[in-house]
Amino acid sequence: MRAAVLRGPGDVVLEERPDPEPGPGEVAVRVTSVGVCGSDVHYYEHGRIGRFVVEEPLVLGHEAAGLVVALGPGVSSPAVGQRVSIEPGIPDRSCDQCLAGRYNLCPNMRFFATPPVDGAFAEYVVVPAVFAHAVPEIIGDDAAALLEPLSVGIWACRKGRVTAGTRVLVTGAGPIGLLTAQAALAFGATEVTVSDVNPARLALAKELGATAVVDPRQGSVTDLTPAPHVLLECSGHPPAVADAVRALGPAGRAVLVGTGSADVSLPLQVVQERELEITGTFRYAGTWPTAIALVASGRIAPDRLVTSAYPLDQAEQALTAGRRDPHSVKVVLRPQT
Amino acid sequence: MRAAVLRGPGDVVLEERPDPEPGPGEVAVRVTSVGVCGSDVHYYEHGRIGRFVVEEPLVLGHEAAGLVVALGPGVSSPAVGQRVSIEPGIPDRSCDQCLAGRYNLCPNMRFFATPPVDGAFAEYVVVPAVFAHAVPEIIGDDAAALLEPLSVGIWACRKGRVTAGTRVLVTGAGPIGLLTAQAALAFGATEVTVSDVNPARLALAKELGATAVVDPRQGSVTDLTPAPHVLLECSGHPPAVADAVRALGPAGRAVLVGTGSADVSLPLQVVQERELEITGTFRYAGTWPTAIALVASGRIAPDRLVTSAYPLDQAEQALTAGRRDPHSVKVVLRPQT
Amino acid sequence: MRAAVLRGPGDVVLEERPDPEPGPGEVAVRVTSVGVCGSDVHYYEHGRIGRFVVEEPLVLGHEAAGLVVALGPGVSSPAVGQRVSIEPGIPDRSCDQCLAGRYNLCPNMRFFATPPVDGAFAEYVVVPAVFAHAVPEIIGDDAAALLEPLSVGIWACRKGRVTAGTRVLVTGAGPIGLLTAQAALAFGATEVTVSDVNPARLALAKELGATAVVDPRQGSVTDLTPAPHVLLECSGHPPAVADAVRALGPAGRAVLVGTGSADVSLPLQVVQERELEITGTFRYAGTWPTAIALVASGRIAPDRLVTSAYPLDQAEQALTAGRRDPHSVKVVLRPQT
Amino acid sequence: MRAAVLRGPGDVVLEERPDPEPGPGEVAVRVTSVGVCGSDVHYYEHGRIGRFVVEEPLVLGHEAAGLVVALGPGVSSPAVGQRVSIEPGIPDRSCDQCLAGRYNLCPNMRFFATPPVDGAFAEYVVVPAVFAHAVPEIIGDDAAALLEPLSVGIWACRKGRVTAGTRVLVTGAGPIGLLTAQAALAFGATEVTVSDVNPARLALAKELGATAVVDPRQGSVTDLTPAPHVLLECSGHPPAVADAVRALGPAGRAVLVGTGSADVSLPLQVVQERELEITGTFRYAGTWPTAIALVASGRIAPDRLVTSAYPLDQAEQALTAGRRDPHSVKVVLRPQT
Repeated sequence: MRAAVLRGPGDVVLEERPDPEPGPGEVAVRVTSVGVCGSDVHYYEHGRIGRFVVEEPLVLGHEAAGLVVALGPGVSSPAVGQRVSIEPGIPDRSCDQCLAGRYNLCPNMRFFATPPVDGAFAEYVVVPAVFAHAVPEIIGDDAAALLEPLSVGIWACRKGRVTAGTRVLVTGAGPIGLLTAQAALAFGATEVTVSDVNPARLALAKELGATAVVDPRQGSVTDLTPAPHVLLECSGHPPAVADAVRALGPAGRAVLVGTGSADVSLPLQVVQERELEITGTFRYAGTWPTAIALVASGRIAPDRLVTSAYPLDQAEQALTAGRRDPHSVKVVLRPQT
Repeated sequence: MRAAVLRGPGDVVLEERPDPEPGPGEVAVRVTSVGVCGSDVHYYEHGRIGRFVVEEPLVLGHEAAGLVVALGPGVSSPAVGQRVSIEPGIPDRSCDQCLAGRYNLCPNMRFFATPPVDGAFAEYVVVPAVFAHAVPEIIGDDAAALLEPLSVGIWACRKGRVTAGTRVLVTGAGPIGLLTAQAALAFGATEVTVSDVNPARLALAKELGATAVVDPRQGSVTDLTPAPHVLLECSGHPPAVADAVRALGPAGRAVLVGTGSADVSLPLQVVQERELEITGTFRYAGTWPTAIALVASGRIAPDRLVTSAYPLDQAEQALTAGRRDPHSVKVVLRPQT
Repeated sequence: MRAAVLRGPGDVVLEERPDPEPGPGEVAVRVTSVGVCGSDVHYYEHGRIGRFVVEEPLVLGHEAAGLVVALGPGVSSPAVGQRVSIEPGIPDRSCDQCLAGRYNLCPNMRFFATPPVDGAFAEYVVVPAVFAHAVPEIIGDDAAALLEPLSVGIWACRKGRVTAGTRVLVTGAGPIGLLTAQAALAFGATEVTVSDVNPARLALAKELGATAVVDPRQGSVTDLTPAPHVLLECSGHPPAVADAVRALGPAGRAVLVGTGSADVSLPLQVVQERELEITGTFRYAGTWPTAIALVASGRIAPDRLVTSAYPLDQAEQALTAGRRDPHSVKVVLRPQT
Repeated sequence: MRAAVLRGPGDVVLEERPDPEPGPGEVAVRVTSVGVCGSDVHYYEHGRIGRFVVEEPLVLGHEAAGLVVALGPGVSSPAVGQRVSIEPGIPDRSCDQCLAGRYNLCPNMRFFATPPVDGAFAEYVVVPAVFAHAVPEIIGDDAAALLEPLSVGIWACRKGRVTAGTRVLVTGAGPIGLLTAQAALAFGATEVTVSDVNPARLALAKELGATAVVDPRQGSVTDLTPAPHVLLECSGHPPAVADAVRALGPAGRAVLVGTGSADVSLPLQVVQERELEITGTFRYAGTWPTAIALVASGRIAPDRLVTSAYPLDQAEQALTAGRRDPHSVKVVLRPQT
């Protein structure tokens, strides 16, 4: 099969590799769509993310959908021919975290496109059957691939206990922020304010259902009245975090999704006087059934973020599209093209 | 002012009464719409509900909206002229239950239209300012009145922890069942099955968004696949309860909203093997902000249930409409007409 | 090795069997103590429990402790020579329930001494390493074995949200009730009332820390003032359940632990007016670390229930001890003697 | 009556004031013991705490117990002669926060000894009956007074969801830290490590049940193995906070109790990768029943912290005792002496 392999910063090549064989409990999937995530771009540009360093050639891509083409020993479901969305993190299912249902915190997690584990910029991947989630026909390939970043938004809403009537502030209108805002609406939030400095992104946020948008250079989120109940922080921009936390009302919850900084300064006195609850999130656990239900029912259309698509042999183009085109939001690779 | 007064079973008359004066912390409200609830009809027909007996003339009606016309001492909000939806239960706000936020369980609750407390089948009522909830113009008078039964549905969804992607079974498609089903959708439920023996009610349920309906004489709810996560029991019909509990999957939740029976038999072994959680509900607490947000945002239109409206002097007609017209769903009185 | 094998009702014999070999991820354990549970006795007497029927010879016993004697491929912990307490239910760790942390509800659970899975009335057993929980020296062999029934009590306390200052009613003072009462105290309950008709059991309950005891033939639990917050129902006696549920105050929780009846009648009106929450329990999940911590710290001494101990070749004596001796509470087998 | 009045920084005098009269719903209490809190000392030394400035003469003291001596209109309980512990914050009981059970976040809270509300360094105080909590004889006067700071610890444990088997780290061994550590033990924590730089305080922590102590100058809390589940931060020392947060394991909870700093820097990446939950606390709500139950049952003896007691006319001595005596832990005033 062909795979797009990252050999070092700025160096992606198409390689022939043996077709992967599904082991016990696994299925082989022909990849139909795979999203390009900011982390893929970061590995491409810098060859590392924090303590994860690309030391051997690495296949990027962890937002993937496809078609089951072969079953490993002991697998009966999903069937060959079933369209699936892939959950790209494989926990050990034996540790205390896994047994407690927090498999995203498994210390032995093997996650697609995180060195040394290969990802899905390839014609085929192998994955445990339980993490190849069947999707109905109504969910297209790109939408199926984007259930992965949508899962980040669903997880954020769960952690923030977003429910009917919740007022939500989403800071940052990148793909994660936009999907998180949509997730918040699907959880019943009746006010979803999105903040960003990019007017095109804010316009898209409104199209996708945000009830208000704010450019923090023109108006502070702390002026929101009544105060939001929940902050879903998707910017990863430390000053934005502190400001947004101050925007919350009593008993507010802040969910820190956006990454990129080692430390963050919080207004301790505000956190105490309002008894704010602040939670970090790390990926997701158990979100696919919800993501599938929300997209299949038409409540969320994650593929509306897709601004361009590339065949596998243009993986590098896909990885640089965001840098080249300021209007790019979400790029997908379609390895079968 | 005029008020429709129940003097005994089947005996409602229009009386002149002094206009009520708001005391400290209270407001006077000119009633614009008030729903007729099954409990009003039950008092009208039987003169009692369980241990609550109509011994003195009683004004019925507890689903009310109106216009603030006077403020008692110490009240600044809501202002005179503000349209409001009335929360009709006045807890003591001093007991352990109130201080714990469970004011619906207050042992000293004074609830509209529950002997000896008068209700809102009248031109004016008086209520603590904090329980006269301001509603925006987009919410009509009938919808504002029906925030009360909608609150029952919201409370049921909270107790059942309905959230995005939840599969819900609502048993019973009376007004409470229909509003509860709508609430479940607003909480993000992606499958909402409604069961009832009345085909017209089932048809209305579908119109209002139910994803499936079932007549239990034709198909058992225990056949639902995959099993619902949450049962919102609104029929009050004991055999239906046991059957519906059996329909739940592992870790399912059953919320018992429907009343009318002293005891209920539950399948203990099923409850244990699936670790089901069964909760009774008693009215609601803290639901009005959510109800207002859901209706104002267009997610729920409770007034779509209204099948007929009467002026105050036809209160008896309103109370008998359900018995006279099999297609009647929700009847309202409009005391200013 | 030797194993005590149930061939049919009332028919237990000692057999020689091959020593079990640990497979990948498993350890072999030399059993030092194994408790006799009511379910073992029930299988012995009736050859079945509900839908589980002894059709092939079955080794009973699921409350077991021992010493690790061999490691299967891939296992590094616990080490050979480590004393362990065995968690006797092996879930598939792949289904939705397992991934959600509710592995006790796994539909593919293989549980010791439940047909056709053999248990621990044997010199050796094999178990996945992750379910062989290391215990410190301060926990004796019998106490280590009884972490299993203690887990039932811990799980009940979790489900009932027993915490500091909770008032608890435990109905039924068999081994499960007694361990559950002790667990409630360890969770911070400050009032733990135990009810039973057996005065010796009630006396033991008091010795173990119950703050009050009641014989339901002499005084009703509904007279308890102030009302308990939590009912931990361990009798499995349907009339006791309904009565005990009535004893709860507003927002009370009832946890149904005791088994034996298909149905149970509940006071629906009480459940609704007080918004009671009723939960069934099925075994436990993630309880061993808590059980170990509680016993190691001296807060609970589960082996105080042990009234007699037998060598492996007297398994039948052990199974009939409860019937023969009215003062028998908990019987253990010590297979190495 | 006599009252100790703070007229400005360092200026406390004894004054004669009229005996307070209980209004509707209130009781008058003869104060028998009142603890000196760090906030009292801070007002005495600086004349302000943040935005709260002593502009008029102020009676300090908010940790108080006494005897009911008079009932206002409408009060029947507690009775005259009843010993009570006073909950010193009076919320409006009408706002959204109060109705939600979060009365500690009431924006209209009137709190003892917080300008312009007088406290309890006086012979008599008046308080709503519902906040004068009856205590049994087994709880002495000083212990009854110290239910207030104990409530801070109980609230911290609730926010941190401390339960049976929890491993807890308490940073800071001042009175709040010491009471919080005791509360954690009463909630079932089996490992409670206390950190402080004061060896005498650490020794006292061990006497009170801490299972380990650590001086952060000699050993880092991040070395604790296994990692604590819950951090109860009682030092208010920002660098300690960040370090202690790093000590937590996956899914850990940090409760920020200690005050004194406007901002705090947190290790964002650690918070995210471990999905830590960080909560500020502001006083407490609904803690007195728990505090009374824990002290009455002998699980916590808050008066073991008392190192000296003064009569009312030596209020200034009481306020300076901590500065004068390095071994001082908790000082009480006994206004009747």
